[in-house]
Amino acid sequence: MSSEKERLYFASDYMEGAHPAIMQKLLQTNLEKTVGYGLDGYSESARARIRAACKAPEAMVHFLTGGTQTNATVIDAMLKSYQGVISARTGHISVHEAGAIEFGGHKVLTIDEIDGKVTAEAVEKCIREYWTDDNHDHMVMPGMVYLSQPTEYGTIYSLNELEKISRTCHENGVYLYVDGARLAYALACPQNDVTLPDLARTCDAFYIGGTKCGALFGEAVVFPNPRTVPQFFTIVKQHGALLAKGRIAGLQFDTLFTDGLYDEIGKNAIQKADQIRSALREKGYELGIENPTNQVFLIVDNAAQARLAEQVEMAFMERVDSAHVMMRIATSWATTQEDVDQLISLL
Amino acid sequence: MSSEKERLYFASDYMEGAHPAIMQKLLQTNLEKTVGYGLDGYSESARARIRAACKAPEAMVHFLTGGTQTNATVIDAMLKSYQGVISARTGHISVHEAGAIEFGGHKVLTIDEIDGKVTAEAVEKCIREYWTDDNHDHMVMPGMVYLSQPTEYGTIYSLNELEKISRTCHENGVYLYVDGARLAYALACPQNDVTLPDLARTCDAFYIGGTKCGALFGEAVVFPNPRTVPQFFTIVKQHGALLAKGRIAGLQFDTLFTDGLYDEIGKNAIQKADQIRSALREKGYELGIENPTNQVFLIVDNAAQARLAEQVEMAFMERVDSAHVMMRIATSWATTQEDVDQLISLL
Amino acid sequence: MSSEKERLYFASDYMEGAHPAIMQKLLQTNLEKTVGYGLDGYSESARARIRAACKAPEAMVHFLTGGTQTNATVIDAMLKSYQGVISARTGHISVHEAGAIEFGGHKVLTIDEIDGKVTAEAVEKCIREYWTDDNHDHMVMPGMVYLSQPTEYGTIYSLNELEKISRTCHENGVYLYVDGARLAYALACPQNDVTLPDLARTCDAFYIGGTKCGALFGEAVVFPNPRTVPQFFTIVKQHGALLAKGRIAGLQFDTLFTDGLYDEIGKNAIQKADQIRSALREKGYELGIENPTNQVFLIVDNAAQARLAEQVEMAFMERVDSAHVMMRIATSWATTQEDVDQLISLL
Amino acid sequence: MSSEKERLYFASDYMEGAHPAIMQKLLQTNLEKTVGYGLDGYSESARARIRAACKAPEAMVHFLTGGTQTNATVIDAMLKSYQGVISARTGHISVHEAGAIEFGGHKVLTIDEIDGKVTAEAVEKCIREYWTDDNHDHMVMPGMVYLSQPTEYGTIYSLNELEKISRTCHENGVYLYVDGARLAYALACPQNDVTLPDLARTCDAFYIGGTKCGALFGEAVVFPNPRTVPQFFTIVKQHGALLAKGRIAGLQFDTLFTDGLYDEIGKNAIQKADQIRSALREKGYELGIENPTNQVFLIVDNAAQARLAEQVEMAFMERVDSAHVMMRIATSWATTQEDVDQLISLL
Repeated sequence: MSSEKERLYFASDYMEGAHPAIMQKLLQTNLEKTVGYGLDGYSESARARIRAACKAPEAMVHFLTGGTQTNATVIDAMLKSYQGVISARTGHISVHEAGAIEFGGHKVLTIDEIDGKVTAEAVEKCIREYWTDDNHDHMVMPGMVYLSQPTEYGTIYSLNELEKISRTCHENGVYLYVDGARLAYALACPQNDVTLPDLARTCDAFYIGGTKCGALFGEAVVFPNPRTVPQFFTIVKQHGALLAKGRIAGLQFDTLFTDGLYDEIGKNAIQKADQIRSALREKGYELGIENPTNQVFLIVDNAAQARLAEQVEMAFMERVDSAHVMMRIATSWATTQEDVDQLISLL
Repeated sequence: MSSEKERLYFASDYMEGAHPAIMQKLLQTNLEKTVGYGLDGYSESARARIRAACKAPEAMVHFLTGGTQTNATVIDAMLKSYQGVISARTGHISVHEAGAIEFGGHKVLTIDEIDGKVTAEAVEKCIREYWTDDNHDHMVMPGMVYLSQPTEYGTIYSLNELEKISRTCHENGVYLYVDGARLAYALACPQNDVTLPDLARTCDAFYIGGTKCGALFGEAVVFPNPRTVPQFFTIVKQHGALLAKGRIAGLQFDTLFTDGLYDEIGKNAIQKADQIRSALREKGYELGIENPTNQVFLIVDNAAQARLAEQVEMAFMERVDSAHVMMRIATSWATTQEDVDQLISLL
Repeated sequence: MSSEKERLYFASDYMEGAHPAIMQKLLQTNLEKTVGYGLDGYSESARARIRAACKAPEAMVHFLTGGTQTNATVIDAMLKSYQGVISARTGHISVHEAGAIEFGGHKVLTIDEIDGKVTAEAVEKCIREYWTDDNHDHMVMPGMVYLSQPTEYGTIYSLNELEKISRTCHENGVYLYVDGARLAYALACPQNDVTLPDLARTCDAFYIGGTKCGALFGEAVVFPNPRTVPQFFTIVKQHGALLAKGRIAGLQFDTLFTDGLYDEIGKNAIQKADQIRSALREKGYELGIENPTNQVFLIVDNAAQARLAEQVEMAFMERVDSAHVMMRIATSWATTQEDVDQLISLL
Repeated sequence: MSSEKERLYFASDYMEGAHPAIMQKLLQTNLEKTVGYGLDGYSESARARIRAACKAPEAMVHFLTGGTQTNATVIDAMLKSYQGVISARTGHISVHEAGAIEFGGHKVLTIDEIDGKVTAEAVEKCIREYWTDDNHDHMVMPGMVYLSQPTEYGTIYSLNELEKISRTCHENGVYLYVDGARLAYALACPQNDVTLPDLARTCDAFYIGGTKCGALFGEAVVFPNPRTVPQFFTIVKQHGALLAKGRIAGLQFDTLFTDGLYDEIGKNAIQKADQIRSALREKGYELGIENPTNQVFLIVDNAAQARLAEQVEMAFMERVDSAHVMMRIATSWATTQEDVDQLISLL
């Protein structure tokens, strides 16, 4: 591994293990014996902390392993067999989950987006077109709207936008579900005005991402109304998503929601991303997508890409034209000032 | 948690975290940055060690999270859409996976068993009955045999038995797949003569259990012939079973297969289980199922059960008659001599 | 086709086209123009007649094409994703539907039977074992009981038996569904005391078989309570089971339920089967299964089988021992006295 | 029904029963006894005729009941579990099959179209984007292209276009499948240069529509290479698509492919549609979509729509703007000159 050390790594926000506080907690409790499947005291404690953070005292909280698994399990659990899920054309479930939603028998009903975001109007149009079509009984009924906060392009929904989408959903008997794989990085944005209690109030389900926000793995699914999905435990098992040593996930979220760690993780990533964005602007780089979270999209010409690639690991997004590409720099809880300074000096 | 400390815990083999050597390795590498999805160097190293241990230099090895997930993903990946999997009526996939195999569209074709084991004759009969039935085109074609080693009842297949079943499978164009959730505890048995290379030679796929054998979580799927399942990576993703920080699983198996740790874990559990079995026999207890691995099944009357329950956590298996029940004591890598001595003194 | 005429055909009850009254009705209405998908007047009329015959004025009635399709669609529509269906081990859905139930994601939970029939006690035991198992959250929840009336072996449930099973189901929150592929042949039995209104009163869903009872094809699904399955039309479409020219099915059932045709069809088959059974007994043949409906099971030695096979088409059921086999003779609406006389003279 | 007789019916091409020649054949053979499931002589004869018409002497031919069923069964049979099917955004499988493709676990990968048609370039782009994406292992692999001939908007692919798409598919290891629900109406077009042998030469599978082209129901699936899908019979059964009295479908196709009936049916519809199109143009109507087959799309203002609706049944397609709508007139084998003359006089 040592040769890798000489490079700078900004390719994604899941390149390290876990936040040291989590590792310490895992180590400290390692030899304790507890029951499995998330019924242990640490998972219970994590649930209580998440309910408190969401101001949703009745919420049902489950810990799953990863994002695709969580999306596939929650969406399948909430939809009727004949329903589909509305998503931005660029939504993770639409593009990068290898058909996991369809594996569960559900269609992803794609609608247009701008920088990863959909509007209440586009959602409303999709639902209305279904219900006003003479042949709608031959079509897939929209049963849920899927959003990601932040989106795959780092943009965030404002509270006003979220409330409008939520209202549109609930006026039409459609669930609202938010994928929070990188939620810490939305919550920590100065520009953000959507809190955890806001999510609990506007959504029928959402998940608080751990994998990309400081945990070894793990996503916390929150159903503000605990009666939304009966037998969710069994559904999780049926999807192969039930962790035997459930406490390993519970412990991580218990730690993330102790002493504001989840906030702190988000803030570090945002502060570092903002420094990089400022430096890029100063040096005349073009940003590919304007956003306030931990993903920085920049457009570089082929020569610059080749030069940077020798020293910095970034993610390739897409070819813009024959001379330019869009790359992504991701920061995280683990990004150090030293890394950022080196990166900026290279740019 | 402290009040739990006063009791003895023998309810299952997944009550603790991970073997300390694994925790140390996770801690030591925590801040390293690697690529995701199991493409990192630690996962590669773990694969190389497992290939060597199995004497299967070409084997394709993937790390998944848990047992049900692994069974559902592997079985779905190997079967044609119109095929089913033959299993003992008591097999884990038949009883305790909440319909995960059927969720993937496949029938579990159950056959009779004795103490969890099936015979080559019973397998052959099931296959022959399908092919000789005039209506077999209207029936589910057997495409795979599922065994567990050790079985859900702690019994093990001998090499001779395994080879006969393997021959029966392959003469009939049927895959053989072995669920090794507790494989360490079969491998460590003095009575066992089935080695990892034997499994690699006789099976089309099998998994080496981590969750119940010293890891935080994780199962290593081995396809001795790497061409058995094309696009397995995508299938894993589609099943929601792809770990973003794949190295966390890889590191654990890298550690388990370094310096004989997997063997050592197995041996501790077997030695402790044997002590308990000897003590039970001496004290006149009836064993529910004779087996040589880490699960001890005992039959106790209701009064004894009530008395033991005050101090020892065991698993309830079944009611034998109105006056007796069968309980299970499970040992593991983490079972200490002190625990065993205390347990024996209570019996 | 002419050479086939010289033989006697008793292999199944779906060897001819449709009852002449149906053919006449199809011919007579052939050039009329109607809307599709079962929304036409003939389908409406058939629904009204079936509701009247079942004394279920609110019942939702849909016409599907065949038995396996109907079972797969109805079972999938009624079960929750995590539920399975209890069936006799010999039930059609368990053995001869090529995994169609599992294709929809549901496990068939098999229980013991006698001559194709299950008991309320066996059903109750299966349900109770699920709910009293400590690990039932890891298991498939029984959500429905599947019966066939008559069974695959021609036996019938008495009203008392049906009511006990129905009570067991409903006390446990489990649906009761009856597969009536050959229902005409149960209804027409002198020994039968289960009427269509009884089915409507005790079942949550059942189907009245057309394919084996005089139609070209078609099964009428009856949900006595029309609110049992929302969006059933769309579910039918999703299962590929929606007939574009729905009136073709509707017309057939409209005819079958006009002037007692469905009863008449059943009576002819029973009368002919009874004649054959009497003749067999007189001539000293052993009946394989005693039953009062249109399927006659006889046990013959190998020589007799070979001799009969030259002139009579029967269905092979199973080899009894090295010297004997069980064969099936099926009568239908189309069986003539001449055919029966010839058959008896050959026996 | 009588009151309906006074109106003109042009809402769809499946409003009548079957072509009289089919009814006669069904009647004539009604009391013959044959084996089930399509293994009878009539089905064999129909297969032979279709193989001859397609100049595909080895082709495997199966008869299914309806279009959605056929699409769902064939697509599921041909795709690997991790593959999806490329379709025009307006394709029937994408819009009007209630999620039947997703029910089988497969994603519909939509691409842009013009009047229902896709181009080889658009197909090639979709495939190339998948394979050149760094993350394609996390995405749904294109395994098949789905076309309809004619399309949902009545347009047809030229032989040149079809051959280009076929070449693109096969150079990329992707199957080509053509939905021929209305194939008779493409084959009969003077503008059409794609014959049945051309389809058999360029496609891996296609179906010849019966339901909308003169049959009571039924679609003939043709696999020019019979080794394309092993166990298709069982897959059909598993999808609930196996007709017990298979001969009813076989007989219909045997008749359709005797003495050029399928051609004749197509020609009548085209001739009538052309008359209507000419009249519309003469009378100054705007055609919504220019096409040469049996569906005529016209744009009318609200007042004209209201006036016509009193006497003519048409299909509503979409609202063009606040003052105009697009309607569809469909002709078929059963459209008479009298109907057309009356319609034209009303326009």
